[in-house]
Amino acid sequence: MDILKGLIKKNGSKILLIVLDGLGGLPVKDGRTELELARTPNLDELVKKSATGMHVPVDYGITPGSGPGHLGLFGYDPVRYQIGRGILEALGLGMEVKDTDIAVRGNYATVRYENGTPVVVDRRAGRIPTEENRRITQKLQESIKEIDGVQIILKPGMEHRFAVIFRFPEPLPPGSDEINDTDPQEVGKTPLKAQGKNPNAEKVAEIVNKFVERAAQILKDEPKANYILLRGFSQKPDIPTMEERFGVKPCCIAVYPMYKGLASLVGMDIIEFNGNTVQDEIETLKRVWNEYDFFFVHIKKTDSYGEDGNYEGKISVIEDFDKHLPQFLELKPDVLAITGDHSTPSIIKGHSWHPVPLLIHSPYVLGGTSERFTERECLKGELGIIPAQKIMQLLLANAGRLKKFGA
Amino acid sequence: MDILKGLIKKNGSKILLIVLDGLGGLPVKDGRTELELARTPNLDELVKKSATGMHVPVDYGITPGSGPGHLGLFGYDPVRYQIGRGILEALGLGMEVKDTDIAVRGNYATVRYENGTPVVVDRRAGRIPTEENRRITQKLQESIKEIDGVQIILKPGMEHRFAVIFRFPEPLPPGSDEINDTDPQEVGKTPLKAQGKNPNAEKVAEIVNKFVERAAQILKDEPKANYILLRGFSQKPDIPTMEERFGVKPCCIAVYPMYKGLASLVGMDIIEFNGNTVQDEIETLKRVWNEYDFFFVHIKKTDSYGEDGNYEGKISVIEDFDKHLPQFLELKPDVLAITGDHSTPSIIKGHSWHPVPLLIHSPYVLGGTSERFTERECLKGELGIIPAQKIMQLLLANAGRLKKFGA
Repeated sequence: MDILKGLIKKNGSKILLIVLDGLGGLPVKDGRTELELARTPNLDELVKKSATGMHVPVDYGITPGSGPGHLGLFGYDPVRYQIGRGILEALGLGMEVKDTDIAVRGNYATVRYENGTPVVVDRRAGRIPTEENRRITQKLQESIKEIDGVQIILKPGMEHRFAVIFRFPEPLPPGSDEINDTDPQEVGKTPLKAQGKNPNAEKVAEIVNKFVERAAQILKDEPKANYILLRGFSQKPDIPTMEERFGVKPCCIAVYPMYKGLASLVGMDIIEFNGNTVQDEIETLKRVWNEYDFFFVHIKKTDSYGEDGNYEGKISVIEDFDKHLPQFLELKPDVLAITGDHSTPSIIKGHSWHPVPLLIHSPYVLGGTSERFTERECLKGELGIIPAQKIMQLLLANAGRLKKFGA
Repeated sequence: MDILKGLIKKNGSKILLIVLDGLGGLPVKDGRTELELARTPNLDELVKKSATGMHVPVDYGITPGSGPGHLGLFGYDPVRYQIGRGILEALGLGMEVKDTDIAVRGNYATVRYENGTPVVVDRRAGRIPTEENRRITQKLQESIKEIDGVQIILKPGMEHRFAVIFRFPEPLPPGSDEINDTDPQEVGKTPLKAQGKNPNAEKVAEIVNKFVERAAQILKDEPKANYILLRGFSQKPDIPTMEERFGVKPCCIAVYPMYKGLASLVGMDIIEFNGNTVQDEIETLKRVWNEYDFFFVHIKKTDSYGEDGNYEGKISVIEDFDKHLPQFLELKPDVLAITGDHSTPSIIKGHSWHPVPLLIHSPYVLGGTSERFTERECLKGELGIIPAQKIMQLLLANAGRLKKFGA
């Protein structure tokens, strides 16, 4: 049950959600975290006038991928709405996915033939160069545009990786993606046939098998990438849009395709722009400020440096953001939230389960609880430690966009 | 849905969970709790480098028994998995319970006969001495070893109390324990016949009634304990083991039968040893350290003194544990958790509903939030106030035993 149902009202107020990817950290130098080590005079000033707290992206001890991390921030239960591997891969490569689509991750592989039967020699085709991948994928795409009325859309990734979308003429019923991987996961084995676990999935599997056969024919003379293995068949989850659920007109300002893709899944308009700096994002935000009322701005590099274990790099991204903060404030959003989608502590070199600092600024906060925007200071805040998916409710409330519940 | 499903991985890391029974308290002298009054230099040092918080054993305001208190700590929803009274009594007396068993609590009672019908004169047979109980129970056990192929296993408790296990040849379907108490709860009434609420329970009730009749026959010349009354028929709950759910190989080091029994319900190996001190438990822990990867160590006396209202006794147990803490640390567990199964404030002289201090030590904590391991200091910690059943997820995460959720 959605408690917001019937409570939503519209009032033209503007909500700005800034996500510093992988923001949260752990002590990395002199017992201090990346946020504690960073010099952030503007955040220091803002945080004292803001509601602070921590959010748990999925559940205690659970390390979220980018999909669940963002869905939670967008107000969706990340356990209920799970995004399949194939869809995420396609989104990450900047492909559009529709409710008529089955998406899947592909590997180019090397096989030898024994009496006409393929046997896997290398599941990654010797990790062919990305350039080689692009050439081969283009060759495949030019040769296979559709199969039995189903459009085939290919996109190369890095090295041996690519994504395929099977675009059907009609929306697909739930469960149409219940198809096994064709990757046998072991050298010396024959690739598996795709098999559907139900009648709808069987129809999809039939197209998949024809596609694999035709690809093998086209690739048969390639020295390394002479076969394809497919994993993670998935369809677009059936998610109500943010406009439907929250009554906002939302847009996304992000550099990386994955985050634009995730935003598009919940119905955000994706604002395209040139450049990849925070300043470029601010210019874009200014440009569309009058057209929307919910703005998701994504800053990626906090996570990238955290994944590299480069705490100085992570600190520099935080400090760079802090320098730009006044420009965000100049836009005078009615509600401003700053947080991360999960923690990426430099000492872990990866996503982690730790709660993430959260700041909400509006005229309707207590404030005065945290001295800085850090993990330990946000623990003292008025929001407490809350599930990520509850943040959206707080933003709507602070924006005056929720009616009273009950009389 | 169990969010951990599909996320579990094994890596050989070791998790040590130390439970000081009834640990939490309330102000009892000079406005300070037992933990605040205790001198705990080793905990004081450890807590600064640890994640701290409080856990709610079952739900806000709910005072847990030992069963729910421990099931929560073991990672099980204590509301979903309820342990029947008979099972708990049998476990407390050190009896093994199987999925073929119905267990029940018994009272020796005094009845008089009116026209051959028993009428209760004393529901507790004048609280006969435990020695007397042992003699009578042995007499019963020697006379009744089985009824219609169902093994009868008796064990004396304190004073007039005992436990019976009806061991059937086959595992029993759920609901086989839906049988009324035979204790009429009032003097002057006739003991009730056991009646099953469904066909499986009816079969059990038939054996129960035969057992009661034969016992009455054997006891008829006893001056006081000439009848038996039975309460709390129950069967072993259908609980997946910790190994199945969490991928750990767990063992239990405890002195009291009840806790060994609870641990055995979730599939822990029970390590037997001589002695009953913390030092004896440490020696045992060292002995089996290489054989397991999850260790549950139970320390009882914090609760016992709390129940007696003896706060000085409770403090002395906390201080004694603190002296032994360095020996636990010398084992270098990858993750160490210290907490209680519930609070037993000396001023209440019983279990209570209050949240319980929790400390988790691993390389992946923020730390620096609490100065001491006390109720008021743990409230400042990075874990917040969490349901007991989430602790296990946090321990697995800190041990590196959980994969990422979603891509």
